[in-house]
Amino acid sequence: MGESTAMSPKITGELLRQLRQAMKNCKYFSEPIQAYIIPSGDAHQSEYIAPCDCRREFISGFDGSAGTAIVTEQHAAMWTDGRYFLQANQQMDNNWTLMKMGLKETPSQEDWLISVLPENSKVGVDPWIIAADQWKNMFKALSSAGHSLVAVQDNLIDAVWPDRPERPSTQLRSLGLDFTGISWQDKITTLRAKMSERKITWFVATALDEIAWLFNLRGADIEYNPVFFAYTIVGMNTIRFFVDLKRLSDPAMREHLQLDSPSKPELSIQTFPYESVYTELQAICAALGPKDKVWICDKASCALTQVIPKTHRSPIPYTPLCLGKAVKNATEIQGMKMAHIKDAVALCELFAWLEKEIPNGNVTEISAADKAEELRSQQKDFVGLSFPTISSVGPHGAIIHYRPLPETNRTLTVNEVYLIDSGAQYVDGTTDVTRTMHFGTPSAFEKECFTYVLKGHIAVSAAIFPNGTKGHLLDSFARAALWESGLDYLHGTGHGVGCFLNVHEGPCGISYKTFADEPLEAGMIVSDEPGYYEDGSFGIRLENVVLVVPAKPKYNYRNRGSLTFEPLTLVPIQVKMMNTELLTQKERDWVNEYHRKCREVVGAELERQGRQEALEWLIRETQLII
Amino acid sequence: MGESTAMSPKITGELLRQLRQAMKNCKYFSEPIQAYIIPSGDAHQSEYIAPCDCRREFISGFDGSAGTAIVTEQHAAMWTDGRYFLQANQQMDNNWTLMKMGLKETPSQEDWLISVLPENSKVGVDPWIIAADQWKNMFKALSSAGHSLVAVQDNLIDAVWPDRPERPSTQLRSLGLDFTGISWQDKITTLRAKMSERKITWFVATALDEIAWLFNLRGADIEYNPVFFAYTIVGMNTIRFFVDLKRLSDPAMREHLQLDSPSKPELSIQTFPYESVYTELQAICAALGPKDKVWICDKASCALTQVIPKTHRSPIPYTPLCLGKAVKNATEIQGMKMAHIKDAVALCELFAWLEKEIPNGNVTEISAADKAEELRSQQKDFVGLSFPTISSVGPHGAIIHYRPLPETNRTLTVNEVYLIDSGAQYVDGTTDVTRTMHFGTPSAFEKECFTYVLKGHIAVSAAIFPNGTKGHLLDSFARAALWESGLDYLHGTGHGVGCFLNVHEGPCGISYKTFADEPLEAGMIVSDEPGYYEDGSFGIRLENVVLVVPAKPKYNYRNRGSLTFEPLTLVPIQVKMMNTELLTQKERDWVNEYHRKCREVVGAELERQGRQEALEWLIRETQLII
Repeated sequence: MGESTAMSPKITGELLRQLRQAMKNCKYFSEPIQAYIIPSGDAHQSEYIAPCDCRREFISGFDGSAGTAIVTEQHAAMWTDGRYFLQANQQMDNNWTLMKMGLKETPSQEDWLISVLPENSKVGVDPWIIAADQWKNMFKALSSAGHSLVAVQDNLIDAVWPDRPERPSTQLRSLGLDFTGISWQDKITTLRAKMSERKITWFVATALDEIAWLFNLRGADIEYNPVFFAYTIVGMNTIRFFVDLKRLSDPAMREHLQLDSPSKPELSIQTFPYESVYTELQAICAALGPKDKVWICDKASCALTQVIPKTHRSPIPYTPLCLGKAVKNATEIQGMKMAHIKDAVALCELFAWLEKEIPNGNVTEISAADKAEELRSQQKDFVGLSFPTISSVGPHGAIIHYRPLPETNRTLTVNEVYLIDSGAQYVDGTTDVTRTMHFGTPSAFEKECFTYVLKGHIAVSAAIFPNGTKGHLLDSFARAALWESGLDYLHGTGHGVGCFLNVHEGPCGISYKTFADEPLEAGMIVSDEPGYYEDGSFGIRLENVVLVVPAKPKYNYRNRGSLTFEPLTLVPIQVKMMNTELLTQKERDWVNEYHRKCREVVGAELERQGRQEALEWLIRETQLII
Repeated sequence: MGESTAMSPKITGELLRQLRQAMKNCKYFSEPIQAYIIPSGDAHQSEYIAPCDCRREFISGFDGSAGTAIVTEQHAAMWTDGRYFLQANQQMDNNWTLMKMGLKETPSQEDWLISVLPENSKVGVDPWIIAADQWKNMFKALSSAGHSLVAVQDNLIDAVWPDRPERPSTQLRSLGLDFTGISWQDKITTLRAKMSERKITWFVATALDEIAWLFNLRGADIEYNPVFFAYTIVGMNTIRFFVDLKRLSDPAMREHLQLDSPSKPELSIQTFPYESVYTELQAICAALGPKDKVWICDKASCALTQVIPKTHRSPIPYTPLCLGKAVKNATEIQGMKMAHIKDAVALCELFAWLEKEIPNGNVTEISAADKAEELRSQQKDFVGLSFPTISSVGPHGAIIHYRPLPETNRTLTVNEVYLIDSGAQYVDGTTDVTRTMHFGTPSAFEKECFTYVLKGHIAVSAAIFPNGTKGHLLDSFARAALWESGLDYLHGTGHGVGCFLNVHEGPCGISYKTFADEPLEAGMIVSDEPGYYEDGSFGIRLENVVLVVPAKPKYNYRNRGSLTFEPLTLVPIQVKMMNTELLTQKERDWVNEYHRKCREVVGAELERQGRQEALEWLIRETQLII
C-alpha cells in the first residue's frame, strides 16, 4: 500500500517539533500530554489503509504495513517486526529509535513508556485508531504504573499535516443477486434472527468489508480492497447507514438500497453522514432499555466501543457478518470459480510469454508484474489487483514480502528461480495465486525444496478432516515433509479470501499461531500456501485458493461429517521443479488429477478466447507425471 | 481414585440439612452465606487426591475424578463432564441436579448461581481448594451481578464430616544421586539462578510433585502418586520446608536434608509444621522490600496467592520446578529406560499367560489386572501402580475411563478385543502403556481401525520437527489416517510423564486443545496414545511413553536443530490386529525396527530373569512383517 519510492530517510525534526507543540497545546485537551501514540490503521481497523490514514508514515517516513510510533517530549520510537527492520532504518532519520519487535532485549511499548515517562504522565492516543482491546491493555499497564491513557479526539498528526489527502469517496457499485446470491434485505433478516437468538437489540458494524458485504455494495476507497468508508447500526426495526451522502444520489443506487420506497418499514434504510455515527450511537445508547444489549466487535475502535455503556455492551471476537461472509453461497462459489478460470487464463499467457521472452534478457521483475496485470485486465469484469504483486527472482524470492522497486528491479534469467504471488479483483470474485518457476535448469537442491513444499501443499489440499475442525490443526500437515529434512518456513499456511472483497479476511485460516480461528465449514474459502526460503539464494511458495467442501469417506464417526478442500486456483504447477522420485504414488496421482482439471477447465476457456500460445503452453505443462 | 464400590445413590438429605445449617452458622463468618461451592481437589491442586480431601464425593456420593458441587438454600447441583453423566446419576440421590457440562443448554456455574440467588447474595468457598485463577473468574462474574464471593477459612464439609479420615503422613523415602542425577542442593542453586535472572526474591512451591522432585524425596500420601503433603518457600538465602515434622525424625532423612549440619548457610533448610505455611508466608510478605517479587504458580490456591500483596506477586503458568522436572537428566532417562524394560518383562509374561488362559474361560477384566500387578510387583524396585488399571474387554473398551468393578466385571474370550492401559511406579521410573489385543480372530473392521490407530501412533513417534515446537502442533499427525476414513477419537494424544513421580505432569503434552503447553525439548517424556472407540462394541488404544531426542535430518534451517521421539515402552504391538496392506513401507519398517528393539532389549532381560515362556511369546510376536 502507498507507493514507496526512494529509500532515503524522511527529515522529521520540524514535524516532531510541531507535534510536541501540539502535545502541549490546550486547544486539544485540558492538560498537556507527555506522550502520543500513533498506531497504523484507520477507524475501521483495516489491514490496507487510504493515504489520508497513513499518519504513522507521515510523521516518521516509515511506510511498512505494520508499525506503531510513540513520541514523547524527548524521544521518538517506532515498533515494527523483523520484516521491516532494514526498511524502517532506511526510511527514518536520526530523530527516531527503531524498536525491533521479537528481539528479547526490545521493551514492549508499555514497558518503554513506563521507563521514560516522568511520574503521573498522560499518554494520548486517537481513540478512533486504537482498537478497544488494545486500549484496554495499554490502559491497564499505564494505570498500574501511575500514568494515565487519555483519548485525544482531534488527531494530532492531522493537526500538523497541512496537505493531508482528502478521505476518498469513490463511486459505489451495487451488485445484483447474480453476483451475491442473497439480497441485502435477506442478509439483514438473517442478522436480526441471530440477534434475537442471543437477545441482542443493536448491532454496530465497523469493518468496511462487512458493511460492503451486507449491502451488496462495493467501492474503491482503499487500493486493492473494493470497500468504502461507512458505518452501519442495525436495530430490530431500523437500519442506520453512515456514508458520504453524495454517494447515494445516483437513482440506481437509491433503487438498490430502496431509499425512496422501502418494501417493508423494518427494511427502510436511514442514511446519515459518515461522521455522525458517534452522535447517533450516543443517541441510541441514551435510549436503551435496561435489558438492551449491543453487539460490537472487540477489535472495533475504542471511540465507538466506549460510547456503549459497559452494562449494555456485548463484545464479540467475530461478528455475525464476518461469519456469514466467510461461508460463501452457491452464487459466490460459482463466481469465485469463474474468476479463477479467468485468472488462470491470464497466468498461462504470462508464463508462455515469460518462457519466450526471458532468454532475450528484457524481462524484469517489474515488467513481468506489469505484464501479469495487463493480461488480467483483458479478462471480463476485471476491476484491479487484489494486492501489490510480489514478483521476485533469485535472492529476492527469499524476502517474503518483497515488492519490486525501480532501485531493486532485477532481470529474469534462465539461471534463477522466479516466484510470483499475485491476484486480482473481478466483479465475480477475488484471486490470490503463487507459482514458482524455473525457465532454465533448476538445481537439485531447488527441486528438492520445491518438492517438499509441494508435498506440504498437497497434504493440506487433500486432507480429510472432521466437520468443525479449526484450521490451525491442519498447519503441521503443510510442514511435515520440510520438517523431516530439517527445513521450515516462518509464516502461516493460509488465510481466508473474500469474494470480490478483501484478499485477507477472517475468521478462518491455517496457521501454527493459535489465534481464535473459527471452525472450518463447507463454503469457506482459504489459501494453501506453504513455502521455503533460502536466504540470499531463492524463495519457493506454492499457493492455491481452495474451497472447503464436504468429503465422503468410508465411515462417519458420530455423524459429524467430514470436509476436504477443492482447489479453485487452476494454474499448472511446474513439473520441471519437481523431483518426482520424492513423491508418493498418492501425491503423483494428486498432481496428475490437478493438471487434468487445469487442462480441461482452463484449456476450454483458452480455446474459447482463442489464446493458442497459452493453450499450447498449458498442454505442455500438464503432461502426466509417473 | 477412591474405591467406588456400589452404584446405589448416597442418601444426602440429612447431610445437606447440616451443611445448610453450617452456611447460616455465625461461628464460621460474620454473615450467613447463600451458596457454598465444593470443588474437587486439595490445597495443592492435585489431580489425584487423598481420602480426607474427597469432600465433593462425601457430600454428594459422586466419586468421578472431575466435578464441582454447589449447594444453595434451595438447590444442590453437580457439574461434571460427559465421561461421568451416567455414573453421577447413579451415585447421587434426588436432592441433586446433574449439570451436564458440554451441552449447550447447561448453564455455567456462574450463570446458574446468578439465576437462582436472591439479590446481594454471598457465595462461600474454601480458598485453599480453589485455584487463584478460578477464584478470579468466579469473583468477577458474581461481582458484576451484585453478589460477592467470600473465602470461608474453615471448610464447611469438614464441619459436617465427623469421621473424616486423617491427612496421610506416610514414611518419606530419600533418593540418592544414582536415581536423581542432581542433588537437591544443586536444584536449589539452579532455581535461585533463575530467580535472580528474573529479579525474583521469593518462590512459593505448592505442587506436591514439584516439592518431591526438588528435595529428591518421595512419599505415599496419595494413591498412585509418590508424593507427600508439603509446601516450600525458597528465598535467596533461606529454604523453608513445611511438612509434618514427625516425618523428619529418621537420622537418614535428617542427613539427606542436611538438617543438622548444612554444607553452606544458604542451603540450610528450616523446617516448619505443614499447617504453618500461611502464617510464615504472611511474615515473609510483611517484611518485603519495595522491589521484592514473589513467584507463585497461577494455579496455586487462592488462599496462599492472596497472602502475597498484588504489587509483589508474580504469577506464572509454570514454575521453574515444573519446567526443570519436565526435562529429564541422563540419570533419570537411564532410570526410565530400566523401568520400562522391567515393565515390558511383566507385560510379556501377562500376554503369554493370557494367551494360554483365556481359552479356559477363567480370566476376567479384574483377574487380568490383578495378574498384571502381581507380575509387575516381582520386578526390582517396584513400588506400586501409577494409576488404576484400565482392563476392558469388548464394549467396555469403548468407555475411555473404564475401570472394572465387581458388578461390571467381564470374562475375556477369544471373540472380543481386549484393551489394557496400565502402569507402575518403580524407584527408577514411572510407566504407562496401553496395548490392544485379540486372542482369537479379529474382524476386518477391528483390524482396519487398529491399523489407522497404529498409523497415527507411528506418525507422531517418527515425526521430525523443529526444536521449540509445541506438542499441540503434532496432534493432527495422530489423527490423519483416522480422519481420512471419517474416524476420530475424542481425547488428546499425549501427556507428560514424571520419573518416579506423577504419571500425568505438565508443562508439555500433545493435544488438539490449545492449552498453554511449553515447547518440546530434548529430555522431555510424553505419552503417544491415539485410539478409536466404537461405542457398544470395542475400544482400541496404542500407547507408548516416548522420550524427546535430537534428530539429525539432512538440513538444519536457521540452526534451529530438530527433534524426534524415541520409544521408551518396549512391548510388542500385536501383528494379528494389523491390516499390513494399509501400512506404507515406511510404517512397516518402523514396526519391524520397533519389534527388533523389543526383542533385543526386553528379550535379553527375559533371558536374564529366566522367564522362558514370555521370551518365546516375545519372539513369536516380533516376527518381521512384510
